[in-house]
Amino acid sequence: MQGLQKRLEEYAKIIIQKGLGLQEGQPLVIRMSAAHGAFAELLVEEAYRQGSSDVRVEFNHQPLTRLHYKYQTTESLSEIPPRRLAELQENIDRKPATLFIDSSDPDGLQGIDQEKMQKVSQAQFPIIKPYRDQIENKYAWCIAAASSPEWARKVFPDLDEAEAVDKLWDEILKACHVDGEKDALKAWDEHNRNFDERSKWLNDNAFDYLHLKSDEGTDFKVWLSDKIKWGGGADTLGTGQVFNPNMPTEEIFTTPIAGKAEGVVHSSKPLSSRGQIIDNFWIEFEDGSAVRWDAEKGKDVLDSLLTMDEGARRLGEVALVPDASPISQSGILFYNTLFDENASCHLAIGRGFSNLLDGFEDMSKEEQEAAGINESMIHVDFMIGSPSMQIDGVTRSGEVVPIFRDGNWA
Amino acid sequence: MQGLQKRLEEYAKIIIQKGLGLQEGQPLVIRMSAAHGAFAELLVEEAYRQGSSDVRVEFNHQPLTRLHYKYQTTESLSEIPPRRLAELQENIDRKPATLFIDSSDPDGLQGIDQEKMQKVSQAQFPIIKPYRDQIENKYAWCIAAASSPEWARKVFPDLDEAEAVDKLWDEILKACHVDGEKDALKAWDEHNRNFDERSKWLNDNAFDYLHLKSDEGTDFKVWLSDKIKWGGGADTLGTGQVFNPNMPTEEIFTTPIAGKAEGVVHSSKPLSSRGQIIDNFWIEFEDGSAVRWDAEKGKDVLDSLLTMDEGARRLGEVALVPDASPISQSGILFYNTLFDENASCHLAIGRGFSNLLDGFEDMSKEEQEAAGINESMIHVDFMIGSPSMQIDGVTRSGEVVPIFRDGNWA
Repeated sequence: MQGLQKRLEEYAKIIIQKGLGLQEGQPLVIRMSAAHGAFAELLVEEAYRQGSSDVRVEFNHQPLTRLHYKYQTTESLSEIPPRRLAELQENIDRKPATLFIDSSDPDGLQGIDQEKMQKVSQAQFPIIKPYRDQIENKYAWCIAAASSPEWARKVFPDLDEAEAVDKLWDEILKACHVDGEKDALKAWDEHNRNFDERSKWLNDNAFDYLHLKSDEGTDFKVWLSDKIKWGGGADTLGTGQVFNPNMPTEEIFTTPIAGKAEGVVHSSKPLSSRGQIIDNFWIEFEDGSAVRWDAEKGKDVLDSLLTMDEGARRLGEVALVPDASPISQSGILFYNTLFDENASCHLAIGRGFSNLLDGFEDMSKEEQEAAGINESMIHVDFMIGSPSMQIDGVTRSGEVVPIFRDGNWA
Repeated sequence: MQGLQKRLEEYAKIIIQKGLGLQEGQPLVIRMSAAHGAFAELLVEEAYRQGSSDVRVEFNHQPLTRLHYKYQTTESLSEIPPRRLAELQENIDRKPATLFIDSSDPDGLQGIDQEKMQKVSQAQFPIIKPYRDQIENKYAWCIAAASSPEWARKVFPDLDEAEAVDKLWDEILKACHVDGEKDALKAWDEHNRNFDERSKWLNDNAFDYLHLKSDEGTDFKVWLSDKIKWGGGADTLGTGQVFNPNMPTEEIFTTPIAGKAEGVVHSSKPLSSRGQIIDNFWIEFEDGSAVRWDAEKGKDVLDSLLTMDEGARRLGEVALVPDASPISQSGILFYNTLFDENASCHLAIGRGFSNLLDGFEDMSKEEQEAAGINESMIHVDFMIGSPSMQIDGVTRSGEVVPIFRDGNWA
């Protein structure tokens, strides 16, 4: 097996070439931890080799966020200064590919006033939304991960720090098909072909609704639209640019009809949201909206999420991930949605994926919402899958088709 | 003596309180290496404790600069995007205090095409200048330093890396009066009082010109204006805010009359400019402009500097530093102007300090230039002082007053 440095170079290659599908002459913005300067060099050089016109790296340092929230007023935190608005406009004009490298501490924002965070998000959203709406589905983006001491300690508390960091790198790279042996670029092409086949089968069935049951207590129905497709793996822009928004990815997903879901879902894994953990929680839906919920841990964070706006109580995603997926089989709890969502069937509260809607390019936001795509300032995945998950699809003619049995594709 | 962590906390305090003199409600922008996240936390928290309204940290990573220059076109590098112009305008409107923490590798940009760098600076300057002119002398700024493996290896090549980093931290902190024993805040007040006394003596003498001679071959006369004062240590804004633009600082300096200097100056220390070293060089001046020069090392960098624009061949600063200064006595060559300029008398080619000019607040740029303040897109210090430096001041009535004898105040 290759050494870590060689594998990181290959990882940089698949991120730039498959994650972003970066095109000749295209600008790139990378957001990542300040601790990863050396990895930034690999990404930036690979981007230039692929012909990027200009690469900008915005380094962040998570502990500073806690200080900003501790000392700044809500008004000051909420303000979006002119330079930031100019940047949002520039993104619309230039459409840079955008890469996020997540290496954050799952507990890194613990203790921050949840109400303050909610107010800041609520104040910024109406200003940012018009910019976001103009660029949505028009640029390539990718979220990938990097190991860090803070994150690795949480995932592997029994290892010493250096070992934990190496072990987490190893798991990240394996999950992204960078195993140091087979060609990772080809592995991603193959992976994307498999997604296409699964999506096609689900789309051909055009289920009216799904019925999910598990031993954790989930008993839940969610209705689907025949105008909203299933997706998974790579996305394609109107320009033809193909990109994989998530690395790793194991999920086949769709956006259910906003306002049509009934029953109870129970979490099967902790959820790390905004640097805080929510664990052992359930949510009950009536007429498509969360009406009751509770959590053994992090109830205040869950409260804050579900009351963010009207759409935060409705669903934006239902995703199918077999228990046999490599990330699930690793048995590792990553405390990071990018990984944990790929180990488990999951739902997302909040914003739906308008690009799954037939003809979305020619529809206004209002038309997309009328077609069933939920709108919200948040989109938060939470895991409900387990080895006991049973899923039936009920067709529009009433036929019951087994989709999952005992956690895996039927 | 205190441990490094305690001393770094005290260092953060003097930077924020004395370096910037940060005021209640004032915004702050910090530019520093991505490698210094933990030190950023100390600076940001101290700034908030002093009442800063909002602190923004822009992390950089020097090796990326080399990649940008290697792969981007001159046109792309020269472009100043709208978001950056919005930021320049925001700086004029909000006047954030600005802190630069330098920890760069003295050789870190070696090998970059000098002509390309020069063209980029030349293309950007006319766009940036109108913004810069509007904010000059109207905001508090400070340059301080942080140790880094790349820099420490260069300064202490015989130590192993961890030792070198610690040793460089120790020298930085000592040079900034953070010795772990005496109160560093009080030490800076005392230091600033000493500067005031020296500046007053030089201003009272109102010399017509200085005559500098050294065994290295320097024999040089430079003329002064009675309207341009000597300064050193703290600066004071129109708002009354007192700040120390350089930490450490040991120099008393003025801006000579642009276009009135004659003779030859010989470098006494290597100059690290734009991540490259220029060493053993001399410059000959006629009518105030460099007309001939040569360097044993880095001649291309020196060429590029002196031909940057018309003003780059004239002088913007003459500074007096005794050989007895603590940084000089340390005998350490830092390959960093912030330190090396404080171990040696020096000159600067390029831009002069308009805030040393009587009544500068009410004068246009053109009036300031007419009064003798040189204008250029660069300001680069170079060291000419040594234990053999002799300096006479010649008064307007022709009296010769010894200022330096054998490298120290006469």
